[in-house]
Amino acid sequence: MPENLFPLDSSKPFTEQEKLGHNRWHPEIPPVISVKPGDSFRVDCREWFDGAIKNDDSAEDILNAPLHEVHKLTGPIRVEGAKPGDLLVVDILDVGPIPMEEGPLAGQGWGYTGIFAKHNGGGFLTEQYPDAYKAVWDFTGQVATSRHIPGVAFEGIIHPGLMGTAPSAELLARWNKREGDLIATDPHRVPPLALPPEPNGAILGGVAEADFDRIASEGARTAPPRENGGNQDIKNLSKGSRVFYPVFVDGGNLSVGDLHFSQGDGEITFCGAIEMSGFIELRVDVIKNGMETYGVSENAIFMPGKVEPRFSEWLAFSGTSVTLEGEQKYLDSQLAYQRACLHAIDYLKKFGYSGEQAYLLLGAAPIEGRFSGVVDIPNSCATVYLPTAIFDFDVRPSASGPHQVKQGIPAPRASA
Amino acid sequence: MPENLFPLDSSKPFTEQEKLGHNRWHPEIPPVISVKPGDSFRVDCREWFDGAIKNDDSAEDILNAPLHEVHKLTGPIRVEGAKPGDLLVVDILDVGPIPMEEGPLAGQGWGYTGIFAKHNGGGFLTEQYPDAYKAVWDFTGQVATSRHIPGVAFEGIIHPGLMGTAPSAELLARWNKREGDLIATDPHRVPPLALPPEPNGAILGGVAEADFDRIASEGARTAPPRENGGNQDIKNLSKGSRVFYPVFVDGGNLSVGDLHFSQGDGEITFCGAIEMSGFIELRVDVIKNGMETYGVSENAIFMPGKVEPRFSEWLAFSGTSVTLEGEQKYLDSQLAYQRACLHAIDYLKKFGYSGEQAYLLLGAAPIEGRFSGVVDIPNSCATVYLPTAIFDFDVRPSASGPHQVKQGIPAPRASA
Amino acid sequence: MPENLFPLDSSKPFTEQEKLGHNRWHPEIPPVISVKPGDSFRVDCREWFDGAIKNDDSAEDILNAPLHEVHKLTGPIRVEGAKPGDLLVVDILDVGPIPMEEGPLAGQGWGYTGIFAKHNGGGFLTEQYPDAYKAVWDFTGQVATSRHIPGVAFEGIIHPGLMGTAPSAELLARWNKREGDLIATDPHRVPPLALPPEPNGAILGGVAEADFDRIASEGARTAPPRENGGNQDIKNLSKGSRVFYPVFVDGGNLSVGDLHFSQGDGEITFCGAIEMSGFIELRVDVIKNGMETYGVSENAIFMPGKVEPRFSEWLAFSGTSVTLEGEQKYLDSQLAYQRACLHAIDYLKKFGYSGEQAYLLLGAAPIEGRFSGVVDIPNSCATVYLPTAIFDFDVRPSASGPHQVKQGIPAPRASA
Amino acid sequence: MPENLFPLDSSKPFTEQEKLGHNRWHPEIPPVISVKPGDSFRVDCREWFDGAIKNDDSAEDILNAPLHEVHKLTGPIRVEGAKPGDLLVVDILDVGPIPMEEGPLAGQGWGYTGIFAKHNGGGFLTEQYPDAYKAVWDFTGQVATSRHIPGVAFEGIIHPGLMGTAPSAELLARWNKREGDLIATDPHRVPPLALPPEPNGAILGGVAEADFDRIASEGARTAPPRENGGNQDIKNLSKGSRVFYPVFVDGGNLSVGDLHFSQGDGEITFCGAIEMSGFIELRVDVIKNGMETYGVSENAIFMPGKVEPRFSEWLAFSGTSVTLEGEQKYLDSQLAYQRACLHAIDYLKKFGYSGEQAYLLLGAAPIEGRFSGVVDIPNSCATVYLPTAIFDFDVRPSASGPHQVKQGIPAPRASA
Repeated sequence: MPENLFPLDSSKPFTEQEKLGHNRWHPEIPPVISVKPGDSFRVDCREWFDGAIKNDDSAEDILNAPLHEVHKLTGPIRVEGAKPGDLLVVDILDVGPIPMEEGPLAGQGWGYTGIFAKHNGGGFLTEQYPDAYKAVWDFTGQVATSRHIPGVAFEGIIHPGLMGTAPSAELLARWNKREGDLIATDPHRVPPLALPPEPNGAILGGVAEADFDRIASEGARTAPPRENGGNQDIKNLSKGSRVFYPVFVDGGNLSVGDLHFSQGDGEITFCGAIEMSGFIELRVDVIKNGMETYGVSENAIFMPGKVEPRFSEWLAFSGTSVTLEGEQKYLDSQLAYQRACLHAIDYLKKFGYSGEQAYLLLGAAPIEGRFSGVVDIPNSCATVYLPTAIFDFDVRPSASGPHQVKQGIPAPRASA
Repeated sequence: MPENLFPLDSSKPFTEQEKLGHNRWHPEIPPVISVKPGDSFRVDCREWFDGAIKNDDSAEDILNAPLHEVHKLTGPIRVEGAKPGDLLVVDILDVGPIPMEEGPLAGQGWGYTGIFAKHNGGGFLTEQYPDAYKAVWDFTGQVATSRHIPGVAFEGIIHPGLMGTAPSAELLARWNKREGDLIATDPHRVPPLALPPEPNGAILGGVAEADFDRIASEGARTAPPRENGGNQDIKNLSKGSRVFYPVFVDGGNLSVGDLHFSQGDGEITFCGAIEMSGFIELRVDVIKNGMETYGVSENAIFMPGKVEPRFSEWLAFSGTSVTLEGEQKYLDSQLAYQRACLHAIDYLKKFGYSGEQAYLLLGAAPIEGRFSGVVDIPNSCATVYLPTAIFDFDVRPSASGPHQVKQGIPAPRASA
Repeated sequence: MPENLFPLDSSKPFTEQEKLGHNRWHPEIPPVISVKPGDSFRVDCREWFDGAIKNDDSAEDILNAPLHEVHKLTGPIRVEGAKPGDLLVVDILDVGPIPMEEGPLAGQGWGYTGIFAKHNGGGFLTEQYPDAYKAVWDFTGQVATSRHIPGVAFEGIIHPGLMGTAPSAELLARWNKREGDLIATDPHRVPPLALPPEPNGAILGGVAEADFDRIASEGARTAPPRENGGNQDIKNLSKGSRVFYPVFVDGGNLSVGDLHFSQGDGEITFCGAIEMSGFIELRVDVIKNGMETYGVSENAIFMPGKVEPRFSEWLAFSGTSVTLEGEQKYLDSQLAYQRACLHAIDYLKKFGYSGEQAYLLLGAAPIEGRFSGVVDIPNSCATVYLPTAIFDFDVRPSASGPHQVKQGIPAPRASA
Repeated sequence: MPENLFPLDSSKPFTEQEKLGHNRWHPEIPPVISVKPGDSFRVDCREWFDGAIKNDDSAEDILNAPLHEVHKLTGPIRVEGAKPGDLLVVDILDVGPIPMEEGPLAGQGWGYTGIFAKHNGGGFLTEQYPDAYKAVWDFTGQVATSRHIPGVAFEGIIHPGLMGTAPSAELLARWNKREGDLIATDPHRVPPLALPPEPNGAILGGVAEADFDRIASEGARTAPPRENGGNQDIKNLSKGSRVFYPVFVDGGNLSVGDLHFSQGDGEITFCGAIEMSGFIELRVDVIKNGMETYGVSENAIFMPGKVEPRFSEWLAFSGTSVTLEGEQKYLDSQLAYQRACLHAIDYLKKFGYSGEQAYLLLGAAPIEGRFSGVVDIPNSCATVYLPTAIFDFDVRPSASGPHQVKQGIPAPRASA
């Protein structure tokens, strides 16, 4: 087993560990680990809220989740010799929950999915589902089940929700400018259009005290995916994947975190993935001058792993870019996917699920979201695919009508 | 083999056939075929432009393609006993090119993909690629290759691009109202925001002469997907699929056409699929009152077939909702998928493809387009997956740099 | 579509066609077609019994099937320039039933599976099932169902059961010697140990009359697979496969036939596949001196196609090398697979199938037969995998006990 | 995480652990653990030779491997309420190497494959490869590579090679009788036809001293698979599998061990799997009277897991039942598979592998072995499928000839 270069003690908060990670993007956060091209190594990763969400039957913790403190990232990891313009090759050798943990931060054995309240995070369907809800998922081996969502079980596609390289000063400035410009168009919107730098709650690894306030006021938030990869929430960055990141600073300064036991395409409930603490094993390499050689400047490239759950039967729902109120929008795939997901929820409600249960399920299960048509004016066509095998009953339409699930503990709810 | 209820003579245009189809949606277009629940049958389908696009090395035909005349649809097919509120179950038993054809309309043996000019159709990347281009694809068995795009070969996922039930008068009126409202916001836009009813070029099957002009002026255009299914361009409606359509008029009045030999998710070049004439075998059934029973009102549900090409290795590109000019947009998956596709094109150009060749390839090959993240404000994350096995060289990034394809006939271009 | 170089008229027997094929292996059978390396072409193939088996509810035709007349092969096909020592590359571009046929030989729309009587062919489980049975399968698109076996439907993996190159005179002599030696050890066994050359019923293509009797008395029977490929009955030689055959005579002299709509691994009922007439499209090429280069002398190499039915759930049965009577054999995988198949049949009988129905099903459906353990003295372990999706009921073991299928027409039986 | 009911201390031999397992089958070995239907639990398993094989470059340990001491099994595990006639349902929730071990018995990080010498175990191709060889495999995440076999890497399908229920006294007597009868036909054969009870080296868990010698002289060896499951070496009993075992004694008395990181179908080198120590998590349940209900008496039924490596391209080799010396055997699939494997080895030798390297690779990699034809007298046709993606070069035949692998450390050899 490769050496663990960033071990975390489950009994202590993220900020009291031997090595300190970070929760903002900034080129001046110094590397906490240094490795060579070709090296394999392991690091631990803390669940994105550092244990604020509990394995219980209340959603108060989701309602009041400390969003300004996320994500707790492991890194930066310096790769010797990596220079701006190179491609950093990252192999995900293994990733999983941390076994045999104890204490309040234990990640092994369970995880959670949340619908975030409209005033604290929101989500893909926040207009329809404005209140906070939670589902706790139990892991038995590779399978997740939930006492809050009856009748389903599925193999997790375990993956890091967030991984990326550090931005250059120039790139960071560009991020802050463009996101600030967007926020300025509607600064009081709830939920906000974007999240500006926020010194409150900033964790900056080994930044010297003299620089802390400046860097905290400049550091980009970790919520969005950007040119450096970042919070891409690509469910297929599973074991065996290879990712190619652009390098913007000397050493690349890779960071990783926000591990998910499973997630549906889109991670639609905002915290749609099944969030957990865990470990990840990586191997890194460098393609010199790879950005120019391969035409990569503003994105990560990746090759998903070969070992993901196989499904051969899917039930799919389509949506188009017409709002719920009947207004025609122009080629809007975001809206089309919302409508497809709402159609799937409408369908699942006929089987006895609450809308929130169905919404939570679509966030967490290995559903696929597809751009089916993006050119047939004025309607985009988006589709969401549910693997039928995750249900322990026949979920297909038939002349005999829908089976009714037997409800146990409803998904916990909290509203302000 | 099931009886062919709608045979087409390849030597004659669509309007001179024994049975006449249609190219507009309207509840008063009378059924041309009637079948019973449980029936299996075959129909022929004409390529969407009825033979206007030729197997040659010019793109003039794409430049001047008669868009007001599409799509040439087979139907309506009445299913006895189907009533509004029912779900129409449609099994796609088989679909393929028509073998052994001759004459100018022959669909067998080849098909085509086009980039449509910005002033005549446009496409997903029309700002970057405003001129008309064409690629002709040859079929050998189930595999497509093109003299205009070297170094690739792939198995087709043959499917109907367009299938759907007739709208009710009320639904049709709603379509015309909402699409008209959208057009009114920018009536002179090029390409247009939507296509209003257009009597010129309307084909209305068995509509009586007295009603023709009225119906032609009311009939909805077939370009967009809508509540009735329609031009969904879902590449996975392959052989063995089962589709559930809402029924809006007595008999359901199913129509089908626009067969594709292959297509990538999104059909990004507008005519991104490999267009062809062919046949389709269907079996129909009815779930009485299925719309209410299964919560279906505004969309089709489907289950894709089990027999599609298997790929185990993919190269994927991500994109976010930042414009090429660097402007930050808010959670715009349409834009994110454009950026992902442009990243893939930038990459493929390094292997010696022209941008247009890469664009044509992404439209036609069995690529997958995914909604990876749709909640991480302000960026949606979209990903496009290319199966590496479709290339006859190693398309993966490596230290040895990109292979260079050997160009033959470049993709034909035409501009006004 | 490639040119059909060997068309068959469905209304006429094999021997009255324009071009004459053959049903014995011999180097002196002259080529009936000649093609060049790189050529694509189509040929028709006749069902192995040339229409002797009918679409009815009797098994008399199976009981009396004319085994000495099989297989009706299309070819030999000469590939220009192929020399002994080369590898002949054969791409299976397409293969399928012949559409729209009429008359007694129609292959389209249906096929059949037979259990052959012990005294006329026998089969894998002939000791347990000594009588003749038949199941007729109807094709709807790519799916097979049978009025004789309720509750199952599956996508066919269409393939040629038999394809191979002509033997050299030396190789033919070796075949005849070794098979004759085997027969001599028990010459009156029923069923026989092997089939010697048999002039009665021999069809020899364009062999000159003066040579006919000699060649008919020397020509090897087509039943077994041998060094030249031959009747390998590999269900995965599906569309898109590439096969590499050793070349033993100038031109290679490829022959092909015995098309199957579907088959299980092993083709256990002897005529376990769903037999049909059809067409096949091939592309040929030559690797000069490929036998030495790649170490190929006594076998074909192949790469199966990418488009086969996907199944994600299987129910598997194991067997070991102990006879039904309890005798321990030494590492006998043939026996172990028999026991595995018998265990599967015992299981399916609990769902209301007759043993013969279950046996017929295992021959025809896309089951997989695996060598699981071959070294754990004294027992080989063989396993047979049934895809659960082919059943229209839940075929898995559970506390609620087996579902009972509703029988319609039982599988027809005939005994001498 | 489920409780570990059978922890093993890696620094101590199997016989000095807190709980003692066994290495013989006998109904009187008392359960060491007791669980209830529905329980999930974890147990550790020791590598089959208990650490006798080292991570070095010598094969002396394989040459002298203590075969009479295998397999070191965890159990028996009593399932409350299970009675003879029931089916024991066993879900494999998880299985893997034991992380972070130290000491001579460490299983994590590496495993080994061996060719056993003809006089000490032998193997599938012992006539061709009579000497002892070894390959050590390193694990990086889920991938295995070997310094002794260049150019290959593959994802492991981790599974228990051996799992089964205890035999009844009657069944055990039957085993000993039939295997003794076989041995008696050639008692001095090398390798032997079967392994009789052997008191030397017997480990019998909690058997009382007074009974030890009797039970040691009656207990069946664990090498072969039998009616109780046992050493089936089915590579697809992977994570997520469900197995149904017949129950022959009160409590079922399940035992498990012989974990494999990967294995090819057949485990052809005798110790063909990559052997390792590890853990397994199980959930058990009981179907009352399931043996009669489902027609199960002499075999295990299983459903493989959904998460195994996906491959879409295979290179396959066929073999028939003709010996290397040219003798024709009658429908002998064991021989046909030997010939198929020898053909694959001949092919791989052309790429620069030694025959032993190729043989070791076929034992360990996720190859598939299929019964292709078992009825075409006199030849069975067996096929072995190699996934091309496990090679880091193009392993397909082509006009350009075979790539040559760069040899490092040859596979270690030892002979007596």
